[in-house]
Amino acid sequence: MSKTFNIAVVGLGQIGSYLLNELNTKKKDIQNKTGKKINIVAISAKNKNKKRSFKINKKIFYSNPLEIIKKKKIDILFEAIGSSDGMSKKIVETALKNKVHVITPNKALISKHGDYLSKIAEKNNVNLEFEASVGGGIPILRTIKEGLATNKISKVYGILNGTSNYILSEMETTKDSFSNVLKKAQLLGYAEPVNPKLDLNGYDALAKVKILSSLAFNNKISSTNNLMEGIENIESKDFEIADQLNFKIKLLGITELINNRLFERVHPCLVKKNTYIGNVNGVMNAVILEGYPVGESVLQGEGAGPGPTSSALMSDLLSILRGNIKYPFGISDKKRNKIRIYDLNKSSNSLYIRLEVKDKPGVLSIITKQLAKYKISVQRLIQIPDHKKKTASIVIITHEANELNSKKCIKSFNVNKNILKNPVLIRLF
Amino acid sequence: MSKTFNIAVVGLGQIGSYLLNELNTKKKDIQNKTGKKINIVAISAKNKNKKRSFKINKKIFYSNPLEIIKKKKIDILFEAIGSSDGMSKKIVETALKNKVHVITPNKALISKHGDYLSKIAEKNNVNLEFEASVGGGIPILRTIKEGLATNKISKVYGILNGTSNYILSEMETTKDSFSNVLKKAQLLGYAEPVNPKLDLNGYDALAKVKILSSLAFNNKISSTNNLMEGIENIESKDFEIADQLNFKIKLLGITELINNRLFERVHPCLVKKNTYIGNVNGVMNAVILEGYPVGESVLQGEGAGPGPTSSALMSDLLSILRGNIKYPFGISDKKRNKIRIYDLNKSSNSLYIRLEVKDKPGVLSIITKQLAKYKISVQRLIQIPDHKKKTASIVIITHEANELNSKKCIKSFNVNKNILKNPVLIRLF
Repeated sequence: MSKTFNIAVVGLGQIGSYLLNELNTKKKDIQNKTGKKINIVAISAKNKNKKRSFKINKKIFYSNPLEIIKKKKIDILFEAIGSSDGMSKKIVETALKNKVHVITPNKALISKHGDYLSKIAEKNNVNLEFEASVGGGIPILRTIKEGLATNKISKVYGILNGTSNYILSEMETTKDSFSNVLKKAQLLGYAEPVNPKLDLNGYDALAKVKILSSLAFNNKISSTNNLMEGIENIESKDFEIADQLNFKIKLLGITELINNRLFERVHPCLVKKNTYIGNVNGVMNAVILEGYPVGESVLQGEGAGPGPTSSALMSDLLSILRGNIKYPFGISDKKRNKIRIYDLNKSSNSLYIRLEVKDKPGVLSIITKQLAKYKISVQRLIQIPDHKKKTASIVIITHEANELNSKKCIKSFNVNKNILKNPVLIRLF
Repeated sequence: MSKTFNIAVVGLGQIGSYLLNELNTKKKDIQNKTGKKINIVAISAKNKNKKRSFKINKKIFYSNPLEIIKKKKIDILFEAIGSSDGMSKKIVETALKNKVHVITPNKALISKHGDYLSKIAEKNNVNLEFEASVGGGIPILRTIKEGLATNKISKVYGILNGTSNYILSEMETTKDSFSNVLKKAQLLGYAEPVNPKLDLNGYDALAKVKILSSLAFNNKISSTNNLMEGIENIESKDFEIADQLNFKIKLLGITELINNRLFERVHPCLVKKNTYIGNVNGVMNAVILEGYPVGESVLQGEGAGPGPTSSALMSDLLSILRGNIKYPFGISDKKRNKIRIYDLNKSSNSLYIRLEVKDKPGVLSIITKQLAKYKISVQRLIQIPDHKKKTASIVIITHEANELNSKKCIKSFNVNKNILKNPVLIRLF
């Protein structure tokens, strides 16, 4: 007789309740593929009687998830609350310490407490799986940990936030404003209705970058937020100009080793129109890995929503049911290194800078003087006057410029009273 | 003390010797990731003294691989001979029966004897792993078996043969002939020097399609070769015309369920220029999966060569070292179905037909009459005369046409003495 695994699902929002339905409908399929039975013995959420898209069994409902660990014999716990601390952390910690396997899509939790939690998992000989935390339905973490396990990975980058990518794609095609497109994204369920900030300011993508780094380079999760910029300042005129210059605008997450130092970053990029990454549109996510001997690998798929997330959670479940205990980060905690952080100020990039200025004599000369002062040389300059408002947009594409100098230069623009708004800066990829 | 796994590598061609070098240089990395040690205790090839790109240890050399099983205690055997029968089959069979795990990149073997061999593996409780048989460095089989394990997959398609894709890409960009580009591919090591036929006639891609089907749909490997067409008849003028019509020419492998019947096929396709698949060039492979709930997933990577193949072989090794015995096809042999085959003759497609004809009055009318007879309606017709030769190329893009009718019609063209060559037929994707 095959063992039955007792399962608890904690958090019954969009993802938790979709997952619960999947678990119920796919019991037989799971048994066929693993030889193991599953039994959902406990569910938990704040509000028992909230309206949900799938029916729940109220007989196994707990309002305090910690009670589940005390009162029931659980083998596997799904955490789908989704915060970086609080009950999310508490229940995962408690479950692991009680030798319960944990599966979570929570990138905020893993990117903040992943090292600590994986140590507990390893000590208690249980799995902590978080495939769904990066790339939605794309099995990117499993691919790094297993499919490309012995490759030397040098760089991982891609489009990691579906909300931002949807907004950028829509702004490009509709020529509508950021705030209008954001409203549309919220209506369609692609952006959080109350506080969409974490998707738009780069925080969500950076959490994913940190998880990708730690798997690709076997390092402890870095705690520095060196370079995190979002898409909030991009205007539709930036798309028009980018288009003329044969570019698209994408929010990229990038991690790589430069002289054995870790360089993680999230910021909008100008990418060439005819590149692969320039053609990943809408809510799609895509990750590109450069490794040896495998070469370049690309994975693309739907990056958000309960369907793809559920697909990843279920793959974690099957991995556990198939019975192999694995290091959460693919390698024992003791073997994971702390990699020193690359000095951002030493990096350099070609830049797109857009300045909104008063259209009067001498302004351009002040700007070019400042650029020269900070050793930023101009590759291309476009001036677009707005005669009605007596203003002009000045767009500068620079040659490779040092980050620290660029920062100082932009700062000097910020205090110049002829420059009417904060400059828009987009790095060329 | 951790167990040491004894390893044998059988076949020391390009792939086998590259793998051997990888195994030797990555012992420590493997131990870090799995906690297990490996020891290469036997190697085998036909010729002990052949010049190889990597040095081999002649003290552990066997010219007959079957001797290894008799004389040594082996845990894992790599088969890298590469034929569908003969010693490839014999050594894999013998190893599995002696409870030795087997890892192979051999798609000819798996697509022909995979069902039989997986049954032996299951009975003896050992692994038979063949990640490297499809998609080179792309972990596509692991993705279906594990990453997307509980999805309902409806269609899998892609560019599965790097040699063909290289030749098509080169013909397109250089406008050179098939035979010249093939010679170049052979010089660069992208095509077999002696007999490149299996890569060019669709055989290799179809073997991969069969393996993909069996994993995606949990069916026994099909033995029908319903529709297998290669790229040998495509000429550079086809690329010119395709380009004008906004198409690219790609050799696609496709498998899908239509009304619960299995429809597997490999043939050249006209694909729209701006599609993802239309922009996968050179030796790249790409696979697209349509599944529920995950949506569309794309995986792309280098499809051939010892580096990517080795990467996949090593991922199989790590999977075994991590200690989980898995069904070779993701599900027990008893649970795998025989899916009935879709009747090719009932399928329909828009077609690109190119006819080389005598440029004289009445020819076009005969052709259009034949098309009408077989209920093939013309969407577009292009006539390109060659006044010197007194011939013309007639290109017809049809509306959706029934396969059986199309076949009959093409046959009638074959015997028409005004049509000078066998027609070129490319399906629209």
